[in-house]
Amino acid sequence: MLKTHLKNSKEYQPGLSIDCVIFGFDDNQLKVLLIKTGYDDSWSLPGGFISVDEDIDTAAVSILQARTGLKGIFLRQFSTFGKVKRNQDHFSSDSLAYFGIPPEEVKWYKSRFVTIGYYALVNFLKAIPQTDNPGEMVEWVDHNEVPKLILDHGEILDKALETLRTELNLMPVGYNLLPEKFTIPELQKLYETILGRTLDRRNFLRKITSIGILTKLDEKKSNVAHKAPNLYSFDKDKYEEVLKNGLTQGW
Amino acid sequence: MLKTHLKNSKEYQPGLSIDCVIFGFDDNQLKVLLIKTGYDDSWSLPGGFISVDEDIDTAAVSILQARTGLKGIFLRQFSTFGKVKRNQDHFSSDSLAYFGIPPEEVKWYKSRFVTIGYYALVNFLKAIPQTDNPGEMVEWVDHNEVPKLILDHGEILDKALETLRTELNLMPVGYNLLPEKFTIPELQKLYETILGRTLDRRNFLRKITSIGILTKLDEKKSNVAHKAPNLYSFDKDKYEEVLKNGLTQGW
Repeated sequence: MLKTHLKNSKEYQPGLSIDCVIFGFDDNQLKVLLIKTGYDDSWSLPGGFISVDEDIDTAAVSILQARTGLKGIFLRQFSTFGKVKRNQDHFSSDSLAYFGIPPEEVKWYKSRFVTIGYYALVNFLKAIPQTDNPGEMVEWVDHNEVPKLILDHGEILDKALETLRTELNLMPVGYNLLPEKFTIPELQKLYETILGRTLDRRNFLRKITSIGILTKLDEKKSNVAHKAPNLYSFDKDKYEEVLKNGLTQGW
Repeated sequence: MLKTHLKNSKEYQPGLSIDCVIFGFDDNQLKVLLIKTGYDDSWSLPGGFISVDEDIDTAAVSILQARTGLKGIFLRQFSTFGKVKRNQDHFSSDSLAYFGIPPEEVKWYKSRFVTIGYYALVNFLKAIPQTDNPGEMVEWVDHNEVPKLILDHGEILDKALETLRTELNLMPVGYNLLPEKFTIPELQKLYETILGRTLDRRNFLRKITSIGILTKLDEKKSNVAHKAPNLYSFDKDKYEEVLKNGLTQGW
């Protein structure tokens, strides 16, 4: 919840925050970027506040950079969370003192906050998370092994995952999550991981190739003993086109 | 932007509002519920503020009821709008005086507001909009003939319509928009109106019946000279089931 080097609450929109759900894919696992505070080892989504002179979309990007070191990430807003008691009694006076919040700012932190949720898919290998908040740790956590999160962050994460699942039916997914060259089984595993269920190999192959976003490379996966599978890459132009126009032929 | 009988800004979340896009369908036209203020005849979406002791979803329902007389409407949150200058210079001191805002509240109204967008599909015949704000008018306007709206309300309306179009590919639509008994051409017209383009009659019939949400009635449309078309109704249980599980078989 705390923005790095937050100085004066007057510089921020009152009662409004942003929380980010950052997904990465590695070793056939869907990972989520989480923050562990040094104060009480509690886990949370990376988040922060909105400067009064910043659009909310811009604020989301700068919050993420300040909290995790991730730059230039495309974030998508997915939902706003505004139950009355979502942050009631969250910050104790002790914790605010630990975070260096001066006494005159305590009221601001303890007021009711509505939070805007953003999510992103990032290349796990290119993302090197870091923080300059002392005592804080930024970590990739398997989405099946997420610890208890503060506030309603668990609900926000669930909603982001649900949104991602829906979007699998609306647009191609994978460009930012897979390495440049990948096999069809690797792509299928990504889809299975997001959906949380296994898919029929033939059906998947038929559907994914019918979209026309894959380029079959004249290369095989190395380090595989028998029947090395073919490598593919995304046809970026076609991928962008389908991303723009939507996946389903629809009505 | 003004909530009926707003008395004290301290009762509301600062810098945060809600705007509602209410769609209805009548005479083969998609309509939107708009408000015309008595102050300067400007048009806006029905909207208002969030009580500090109200969840945002609850606030959306009560705002809509207060501003339009529509009760028990299911609203869906679709996006939050937060450009820095979206409400800059919107309220003149004259307009705030007209709305009965006391001088000590002026600063609150002139501060930066982020707004949460909600949309709903309502039965045009059952919805009897009204307002007890003097000088204010609530009107259904054809979505192709929407006048210039205040602030970024035009952008909010466009985004709601875009969301509705996407949702046509994810879930059945029509239950709240059509009368209880309807013909396939009427249902097709609804889809065409939302999508903004014509659809092939045979393809539509095949796709819509394959979903399994329609019950063919033993009744024909009256008042039609030749070849009276069959009437249908929605199978409510099946409709709810598809609404819950999603339309596309997907992956």
